Amino acid sequence: MSFSLAEYLQSRRYLIEQALERYLPSPSDRPQRLHESIRYSVLAPGKRIRPILVIAGAEAVGGTAEQVLPTACALECIHVFSLIHDDLPCMDNDDYRRGRPTNHKIFGEALALLAGDALLALAFQLIAENAASVPPERVLPTLHLVAKASGTWGMVGGQVVDMESQGQTVTPDTLHYIHSHKTGALLTCSVVAGATLAGGSAQQIEALRRYGEHIGLAFQIADDILDIVGDQERIGKPVGSDQKQDKATYPRLFGIEESRQRARHEMKAALQQLQEFDEKADPLRALAQFIVERDI
Amino acid sequence: MSFSLAEYLQSRRYLIEQALERYLPSPSDRPQRLHESIRYSVLAPGKRIRPILVIAGAEAVGGTAEQVLPTACALECIHVFSLIHDDLPCMDNDDYRRGRPTNHKIFGEALALLAGDALLALAFQLIAENAASVPPERVLPTLHLVAKASGTWGMVGGQVVDMESQGQTVTPDTLHYIHSHKTGALLTCSVVAGATLAGGSAQQIEALRRYGEHIGLAFQIADDILDIVGDQERIGKPVGSDQKQDKATYPRLFGIEESRQRARHEMKAALQQLQEFDEKADPLRALAQFIVERDI
Repeated sequence: MSFSLAEYLQSRRYLIEQALERYLPSPSDRPQRLHESIRYSVLAPGKRIRPILVIAGAEAVGGTAEQVLPTACALECIHVFSLIHDDLPCMDNDDYRRGRPTNHKIFGEALALLAGDALLALAFQLIAENAASVPPERVLPTLHLVAKASGTWGMVGGQVVDMESQGQTVTPDTLHYIHSHKTGALLTCSVVAGATLAGGSAQQIEALRRYGEHIGLAFQIADDILDIVGDQERIGKPVGSDQKQDKATYPRLFGIEESRQRARHEMKAALQQLQEFDEKADPLRALAQFIVERDI
Repeated sequence: MSFSLAEYLQSRRYLIEQALERYLPSPSDRPQRLHESIRYSVLAPGKRIRPILVIAGAEAVGGTAEQVLPTACALECIHVFSLIHDDLPCMDNDDYRRGRPTNHKIFGEALALLAGDALLALAFQLIAENAASVPPERVLPTLHLVAKASGTWGMVGGQVVDMESQGQTVTPDTLHYIHSHKTGALLTCSVVAGATLAGGSAQQIEALRRYGEHIGLAFQIADDILDIVGDQERIGKPVGSDQKQDKATYPRLFGIEESRQRARHEMKAALQQLQEFDEKADPLRALAQFIVERDI
């Protein structure tokens, strides 16, 4: 029986969105407006790639989705926190995200800022709550990893260097720093978090870390290409917005054709890391291809 | 031999500031400007009340400062994260803090926003690292508590209701919500975190939680009074800034004299919670008095 990625994504997304609905603060609890703001952004339609990677990472080493759901949702909270803050006027000043008005356009800047802050705190609360189904000896290293990948050693650090590089000529080295930190760190730590919580061996976790690094890079190159060749409806933001802001991207540095080849090269390198895994890693295999081939 | 609070504060502050210097990202690591921004705000002169409460909470149940230093520093990081974000133009729009220009006045809004984000992530990373000196079974509940006290169930929630109440007539109930969440939650969880990490009994931890709630309230009332009767040099921000912004405060609702009495009443209630503790809780006793009597 062949593996259907579409069915897999649908079933896992359903689990994740049901869980998010439960874990997010209720719009009837005080402060209601903050909770509406949080839910507006988190429950917006999304690919849920990070929580799916947490689940697929756990499954690849023999664990289950249910076992890692709080942490899977935490990764989505961290991702959405970063989107809300990135969209603020003092950052990218974006009016649209996923085809809808950005959080601050609806709720105002102050509430958007605080919704992001609350989501980051909630993420760590959820990971700590994962100790209900997983031994604390596995939860703590997971939490450490996620905290490190979110802050200056990961996502925030990449965001800062990306900002600093606007309008500048960047070296390939700096471009790699930006991509591996800004998006790569959180994608990598999603797979590793799932495998760690589910009790994967050190060898398995190391292979999945390398898998994560490769798909993280492939994902970002694909994103850069999409920004040029995609259409607004498909990606939900104005096409060419990276170019307008003079951002460091792969196509700028290497051209579109070379960028496409690099994305595929990273995808293949990711698949190689899974050689020692059995069919339980099929979702990870399919995800690697999906990430690169979705639109380029 | 009588207990000297001045000496106690000096020695613990020294420990905390040495540790912060070690734990904070280096200004020579990339992204340098972000790390300068983080260090500018965290290493600014401060009372370090939250990390001192973590240490004093640990000592009260027989633990040591060294045992809880990462978590003590984490609480200071969370406090400073909230100050940086509160000062932003879309929030309180403050130009001065602790007598110096606010973070965004020096580093710009985007970097200030990201420095706050990075500090919140770093805080949870540090608490997870406390597992090097304390069993994970104690670290995880501590981390959960701190995450909850930082987000919508604590500090951020209080901040939102405070914002929503500006220019409105607030009920005593709402004022209590604001104070117990905006400042109270983090102060309370500091003492409880210290005692939890140091292995305090459930009974001890419950008494310290109530102690924390009382000093949290006393602290906020004292702060409100200071804003009216203090002088700019002493508190480092323009006197009357709360009044200007039409913020909900105790003196507004009850007048200064009644507010002073309430602060002292809370201080006494805090001391009563320590009746079953021996002289190892003397720092907590002295801190309760210090908090209320520093300037009112």
